Amino acid sequence: MQPQVYQHTFPNGLTLLAERMEHVRSAALNFLVPAGCVYDPPERLGIAAVLADLITRGAGERDSRELSLALDNLGLDRNESVGLMHTRFWGFTLARNIPAALEIYADILRRPHLPDEEVDAVKALALQDLRGLEDEPRSKVLVELRRHYYPTPLSNDHRGTVEGIADLTAEGIREQHRRLFHPAGTILSVAGNIEWQPLLEQVGRLFGDWNGKAETPIACGPQPEKLGHIAKDLEQTQIGIAYDSVPIGDPDYYAALGAVNVLSGNMSSRLFTEVREKEGLCYAVWATYHTLKDRARVICYAGSRNERAQRTLDVLLRELRRLPEGVESDEVERVQAGLKSSLIMQQESTAGRALSLASDWYYLGRVRSFDELQAAIDGLTPGNIGEHLRRCPPRDFTLVTLGPKPLTAAD
Amino acid sequence: MQPQVYQHTFPNGLTLLAERMEHVRSAALNFLVPAGCVYDPPERLGIAAVLADLITRGAGERDSRELSLALDNLGLDRNESVGLMHTRFWGFTLARNIPAALEIYADILRRPHLPDEEVDAVKALALQDLRGLEDEPRSKVLVELRRHYYPTPLSNDHRGTVEGIADLTAEGIREQHRRLFHPAGTILSVAGNIEWQPLLEQVGRLFGDWNGKAETPIACGPQPEKLGHIAKDLEQTQIGIAYDSVPIGDPDYYAALGAVNVLSGNMSSRLFTEVREKEGLCYAVWATYHTLKDRARVICYAGSRNERAQRTLDVLLRELRRLPEGVESDEVERVQAGLKSSLIMQQESTAGRALSLASDWYYLGRVRSFDELQAAIDGLTPGNIGEHLRRCPPRDFTLVTLGPKPLTAAD
Repeated sequence: MQPQVYQHTFPNGLTLLAERMEHVRSAALNFLVPAGCVYDPPERLGIAAVLADLITRGAGERDSRELSLALDNLGLDRNESVGLMHTRFWGFTLARNIPAALEIYADILRRPHLPDEEVDAVKALALQDLRGLEDEPRSKVLVELRRHYYPTPLSNDHRGTVEGIADLTAEGIREQHRRLFHPAGTILSVAGNIEWQPLLEQVGRLFGDWNGKAETPIACGPQPEKLGHIAKDLEQTQIGIAYDSVPIGDPDYYAALGAVNVLSGNMSSRLFTEVREKEGLCYAVWATYHTLKDRARVICYAGSRNERAQRTLDVLLRELRRLPEGVESDEVERVQAGLKSSLIMQQESTAGRALSLASDWYYLGRVRSFDELQAAIDGLTPGNIGEHLRRCPPRDFTLVTLGPKPLTAAD
Repeated sequence: MQPQVYQHTFPNGLTLLAERMEHVRSAALNFLVPAGCVYDPPERLGIAAVLADLITRGAGERDSRELSLALDNLGLDRNESVGLMHTRFWGFTLARNIPAALEIYADILRRPHLPDEEVDAVKALALQDLRGLEDEPRSKVLVELRRHYYPTPLSNDHRGTVEGIADLTAEGIREQHRRLFHPAGTILSVAGNIEWQPLLEQVGRLFGDWNGKAETPIACGPQPEKLGHIAKDLEQTQIGIAYDSVPIGDPDYYAALGAVNVLSGNMSSRLFTEVREKEGLCYAVWATYHTLKDRARVICYAGSRNERAQRTLDVLLRELRRLPEGVESDEVERVQAGLKSSLIMQQESTAGRALSLASDWYYLGRVRSFDELQAAIDGLTPGNIGEHLRRCPPRDFTLVTLGPKPLTAAD
């Protein structure tokens, strides 16, 4: 059951990763292109998302319609999404259709038409996506939380701004493509019932002569104000909290992950028990760990009826603040059981594996083995989680609320 | 790669289904108990959801906390959810932990404490879930669409009503459990790296002496009004449309599924192309097929900026109405490619297989094989899809909108 993982970095900087899973019929592919919304120019916020939509509207020899048809004919379940650091192209289908899909993706990434006549429709869609956020308070509070936690441009949201999208031109979008779509830093991962040698040869032929240099590092603006409230007449108050953690490459990383899972990882974790089960304060409450390459944060969310919102926030902050007092060995055992179960689920899915390969390579420059991950989970103890929490306690909270009234964060 | 599927129905009416997948480490389990919200008494709407939350708060020898801990210690990723016909208990973990999980589920289903002292917290949570719906216009329009399409009690939503939840008592909830949790019609499915014989013996021991008789058939109320509008000051207008289709057991079933996938199944399907790509009318648009045992419907959804909402509805209805004019062979080929890809994805996941086994048994009284499904997909043609659409054209639309202004459905 030990999987075979392959890796090759071409001279132009493109990295190909693959995992052979011979007991499946499917395969998944995943391109990470370093063209996330962090690179949106301040006066063009939203351009990465517009580009990610326009880029599949014709490429190589195919016009927009022909391109869609060609991908759909391969039975490709796919999507294109813009994250902070990368634009991601993801696809899943029968393993035998992967070579044909790669031929098309080479056109999309390298030879998109980015046609003038589709720009208005794409901009209209981007504006709809942005406006729709106003009707989705849960997503909205998390977007605003990011704005209050990170300096620009790390606080960018892929949806951009009305002004940023309104001023976009076809030529500006093409310029953005020329600037950001290049092999240096691009990662292609494939997992499933595939053969490494033919894959390597095909990717070399399709992308080996792709050129371009990596984007210069981004410069961050000043640290934003840590507290925010958006007044809106809603049934529920949305609460978002963020605080610093250690990034994935840090020696404390697994302890940090363990600590977050003590808070929120299963039905008997602390937030679920204290906020939801004991007091029935809110239906949805969770905490999650989120890393960039050089920094990381923990995000907590709760959505609560307005009259219970202050109490919900009080209990949330109490639980965060008492975390450094220590965690129990039975809590750690449950966290370990849950993390192992998640690890197995991810290992058994071609889509999960393709994502993990690329993610590991981006963050760590290598792919972690199942044994390494299992050993890291087994290595968690109340001792090392407690030590981490005392070095890096939950504090200096960024707090954003969305609802009829602001709340008070007691010291 | 042909999976081994096993089935046994015990004398008390409980059916056990299992699929052995020997190349994985995980397994998933899935109980379907015929205790969905369709059985909520009219004056107690929401009781099924309250029961599904309360039922895990102590069972057998374990109190609420001990039960949560025991399940979490098995690394069980789990949830309990209330559908129209069933309450579902779903769990995923390492295959070797499944026997211990089944022991606990036998307590939950048969010997829950349903403790008085937790009822207030559970009711508070149920009310929060219900109130939260008011802040989620997308979900809200689909709940309202169901109310306008189905007669009661088929139109019930698991969230219930404020009045229904407010009046619930611990004794009433216990009575509901006695009335609805019984082996007749309950289905347990397990998929993953499991052995049939020990599983069969264990389930026989845990559930063989469970007694109780099946619930009487439900009686439906009058057909509701087909048009609805909920006035709300939002950025987007939410549109929901429903119309009759044929249920899963019908000879036309695969043709009906093919027809819906011509509308909405991939990036070049009609709704995506006409509504989203060509005119940029709305960001989210889809159609999906939904079956009960004896009837089925197609549901269409779009969320559109208010000023484009009428045009969005016009294009949606135009596309639905022109469907019986026929579908093209290249459309059918793409639908086939997409359906095969989905089939493979579902086949390769233990969670997907556990759900399919139980679903097939409930609807069809047997489990469809991969070969049967593949042959049915291969058998789709423009001819048989077209014939189905002429026999059962999209018409007599139920239409619900949510936004500042009602829309007009042109004839």
